[in-house]
Amino acid sequence: MAQPDTARLLIACDDQPGIVAAVAGALAEHGANIISLDQHSTDAAGGRFFQRTVIHLDGLAAKRPALEASISAVAERFDMEWSLHDASRRKRVAIFVSKYDHCLLELLWRTQRGELDIDVTMVVSNHPDLADSVRAFGVPFVHIPAADKAAMEQRQLDLLRGNVDLVVLARYMQILSDSFIESLGAPVINIHHSFLPAFIGANPYARAKERGVKLIGATAHYATADLDEGPIIEQDVTRVTHAESAAELQRRGADVERFVLARAVKWHAEDRVIVHGRSTVIL
Amino acid sequence: MAQPDTARLLIACDDQPGIVAAVAGALAEHGANIISLDQHSTDAAGGRFFQRTVIHLDGLAAKRPALEASISAVAERFDMEWSLHDASRRKRVAIFVSKYDHCLLELLWRTQRGELDIDVTMVVSNHPDLADSVRAFGVPFVHIPAADKAAMEQRQLDLLRGNVDLVVLARYMQILSDSFIESLGAPVINIHHSFLPAFIGANPYARAKERGVKLIGATAHYATADLDEGPIIEQDVTRVTHAESAAELQRRGADVERFVLARAVKWHAEDRVIVHGRSTVIL
Amino acid sequence: MAQPDTARLLIACDDQPGIVAAVAGALAEHGANIISLDQHSTDAAGGRFFQRTVIHLDGLAAKRPALEASISAVAERFDMEWSLHDASRRKRVAIFVSKYDHCLLELLWRTQRGELDIDVTMVVSNHPDLADSVRAFGVPFVHIPAADKAAMEQRQLDLLRGNVDLVVLARYMQILSDSFIESLGAPVINIHHSFLPAFIGANPYARAKERGVKLIGATAHYATADLDEGPIIEQDVTRVTHAESAAELQRRGADVERFVLARAVKWHAEDRVIVHGRSTVIL
Amino acid sequence: MAQPDTARLLIACDDQPGIVAAVAGALAEHGANIISLDQHSTDAAGGRFFQRTVIHLDGLAAKRPALEASISAVAERFDMEWSLHDASRRKRVAIFVSKYDHCLLELLWRTQRGELDIDVTMVVSNHPDLADSVRAFGVPFVHIPAADKAAMEQRQLDLLRGNVDLVVLARYMQILSDSFIESLGAPVINIHHSFLPAFIGANPYARAKERGVKLIGATAHYATADLDEGPIIEQDVTRVTHAESAAELQRRGADVERFVLARAVKWHAEDRVIVHGRSTVIL
Repeated sequence: MAQPDTARLLIACDDQPGIVAAVAGALAEHGANIISLDQHSTDAAGGRFFQRTVIHLDGLAAKRPALEASISAVAERFDMEWSLHDASRRKRVAIFVSKYDHCLLELLWRTQRGELDIDVTMVVSNHPDLADSVRAFGVPFVHIPAADKAAMEQRQLDLLRGNVDLVVLARYMQILSDSFIESLGAPVINIHHSFLPAFIGANPYARAKERGVKLIGATAHYATADLDEGPIIEQDVTRVTHAESAAELQRRGADVERFVLARAVKWHAEDRVIVHGRSTVIL
Repeated sequence: MAQPDTARLLIACDDQPGIVAAVAGALAEHGANIISLDQHSTDAAGGRFFQRTVIHLDGLAAKRPALEASISAVAERFDMEWSLHDASRRKRVAIFVSKYDHCLLELLWRTQRGELDIDVTMVVSNHPDLADSVRAFGVPFVHIPAADKAAMEQRQLDLLRGNVDLVVLARYMQILSDSFIESLGAPVINIHHSFLPAFIGANPYARAKERGVKLIGATAHYATADLDEGPIIEQDVTRVTHAESAAELQRRGADVERFVLARAVKWHAEDRVIVHGRSTVIL
Repeated sequence: MAQPDTARLLIACDDQPGIVAAVAGALAEHGANIISLDQHSTDAAGGRFFQRTVIHLDGLAAKRPALEASISAVAERFDMEWSLHDASRRKRVAIFVSKYDHCLLELLWRTQRGELDIDVTMVVSNHPDLADSVRAFGVPFVHIPAADKAAMEQRQLDLLRGNVDLVVLARYMQILSDSFIESLGAPVINIHHSFLPAFIGANPYARAKERGVKLIGATAHYATADLDEGPIIEQDVTRVTHAESAAELQRRGADVERFVLARAVKWHAEDRVIVHGRSTVIL
Repeated sequence: MAQPDTARLLIACDDQPGIVAAVAGALAEHGANIISLDQHSTDAAGGRFFQRTVIHLDGLAAKRPALEASISAVAERFDMEWSLHDASRRKRVAIFVSKYDHCLLELLWRTQRGELDIDVTMVVSNHPDLADSVRAFGVPFVHIPAADKAAMEQRQLDLLRGNVDLVVLARYMQILSDSFIESLGAPVINIHHSFLPAFIGANPYARAKERGVKLIGATAHYATADLDEGPIIEQDVTRVTHAESAAELQRRGADVERFVLARAVKWHAEDRVIVHGRSTVIL
């Protein structure tokens, strides 16, 4: 899946006339071909503008400095945030897990199969249970027991800092401290086992059963200091009936969790997700 | 759709051996044929048991007293709540509405088409706007302006008591008082324009947009003294993206509301819904 | 919904570097602001390229000739098909219907509600049954009985030619002749009551029941000389069970038909649908 | 999941009054408690009747002969087909596979996790590629190369006959001969990678792309002598767009295949599926 000489340009700025033409012009100037272009404006008048452009440019590595200089000039003119991502460089991902294996295995299997264009550099767990399952995929498994929280997080940070581009919490049953998220220097994607904002917090399946809902769901979101309040990347639901117990809801929900998390990680890996306040734009 | 000589028997009791056989025996004794039988037990051991049985019995009206006596004997033995509903007698329904017409028209059109086996005996509104649309279906429209709440509810109760078997709130923008619900003597079904328990209360579409959810939904539930907390009958959702404004979410959600409410009213009309605590069993 | 000074530019050409920049440049040159831009390339290398661009330009009417000249120059350079649609000019639509009212009413109601940005200029039917329902919306109803097919089609063509931009077959039970479609000079959208290509032809619900499928669906497509083979615009399905009869499948399917057809007409009205061979690109 | 002293009784006969009461009476006579009872009648008048009853009876093994005698007497009276399945005895399953691993791994993983109450006694493949993946689950892998078809099938039959209760074709790319299916003496479930009856035969994803459908699907069905024509157990679909290539449809469809096949095998394992002509009743 790695695509040589291909890059993804993400931009965000206040909406104003001429953005698309200016960016397309800067790219054309260097001979870059636009493979796809998606944009979104939050408002017909006076909103925020977002654009993802995938380009192909023979000899990208050598031409990149000059290309970036041109983009930078356009960005200055429009007061634009921007980033240029090399599509041939896979993101390095650490997966955090506790004892449930369904989300973890889904990610490992899709990566092995070539559906997720990421490098899983390590799996970190507060329990030893899943070591064999992980190592069967040729992925390092690091067991850091949940003793003293500060000490545990320090050991995790020592492992991760500089080594990963993304952390995925694949049903990791520990709450990350604010300072951990701040110190990490990489985004964190979490899977929550409910259709947020319904059933924020613990035991969502039991509470869904108690409330008698007719659909259960899962939500993948960026983890922030506010628990379960981070920007939502993807959600899905499945229909249930009164005949299913809380334990059955949990099994049914596990299937939704697997797919929702896999889609969220895929979109992040392909630089499709732009955070906008408390929500996301998927381009 | 009216089915002569057909009745629906609903029962609820603590689960225990022999219920199905005892009920089926009592029915067979009178020559009643079981057309369908659905049951649910909340727990493999020691839960609550629910059953809906549709029977056909030639000359039902004349044989009903004897049949009820037999059922009553079984019910006493198992400490059973039960009710027997004549399938040839349509429920009399009043629809409450304010200015939005989408849920109202869906119900009127499905009733006209024979899909909802109910009699809409009147539409009550705090606004005059929808009078013509309603009367085009040959249904009385009663305008009771929202002046003094107690006076308004008294006028509504005067109209309704003894005359209806069900009240449907089809996007009625007034909150019913507890005493209204208690005095009414008939169940009330409400449509809430969110996937409860997410976005309880006002302006759910604006809040869904603000929270950045990827699915929006609607919930039909029995109205109780606790606003938006009554037993859920039906829910559904539809997928949305960042590109849709709050106004577009409202339009998209209106389609979900129409279908969710229509299904809930249909199931209630067919005596399929049994309330169990805060949830429902749909048989 | 009519948007003044707004236009939609559709283009199609062989994929090649520089298209987006050239078009954006031509638009910027005249001061047009790009409100949204969506494109699709059928293949990473050497495919067909499609783009829909929505622009806003103060005083569009006066500036249109100059703008078109610039677009035309770009189009010549890239061997491009293109069309520019004024968003303030609603498409004139004739709806053809027989006796089923569900698709017709859905379109009329959504148009009245402002959800479909079209003008329904007439409803044409081979039966008189739905005259009152249609006229209640203030729309002319024309009854052309199905006697001699050639004569009937000639009367229809006399009514339609030059007067409509689109014909919608909303469960119209007559087959259009090839010459009718050719003579009409406007596209025709049909709703087929199955998930094509399953159950092509007559009686799809009965055949779905007989085959025991677990989902039933509907398909909106452009009508072509090959019956049920035209480019698909939209499809959807709903889950069914063994417990539902063919008549119930038909009722359940009617709900899918209503929504699928409404979406297809909406997308066509917004110039979002581009035909590509036997399929469509929805931008 | 194995449930001691629990059995599932399946019956099928022409619909007639008194069936439910007679069966419930026979069960009650032996002290069997009805845990759940689901029934279906193909027609309000004069159809075929099906019932699945789950019972609990302490000391089932010892009481089974007497219980069967009572059921047999009822069955004779109503000209009933019936079977009684011990819920504590897992079905023995052989999975056939070629090179695609997604359906196979889904079944093995769900079995390991306790979600599928089956014993996978062997995996049979015409390719050696998946041997390691299978053996990691502790399941025997038997490689029978596809040389001479008759010889290959004879070797398969020698392995299977008497040893399995079900064969699952988890994307097995060989067509079974009619004589193989007849000689096997066990049902065969196949997963077809399209929403049947659309795209019967080879290469459904490429044909779905070519036809421009907006949803792709998968179908699990019992294999019969008529290829792709056997009774459908389960189907599902997922939405796709013009932007996805045939290869992407195949990846997207693989996820539908996994879940559809898993549900079909689960329902069969729980004795929920009754074949009725070319269709199935799921109780």
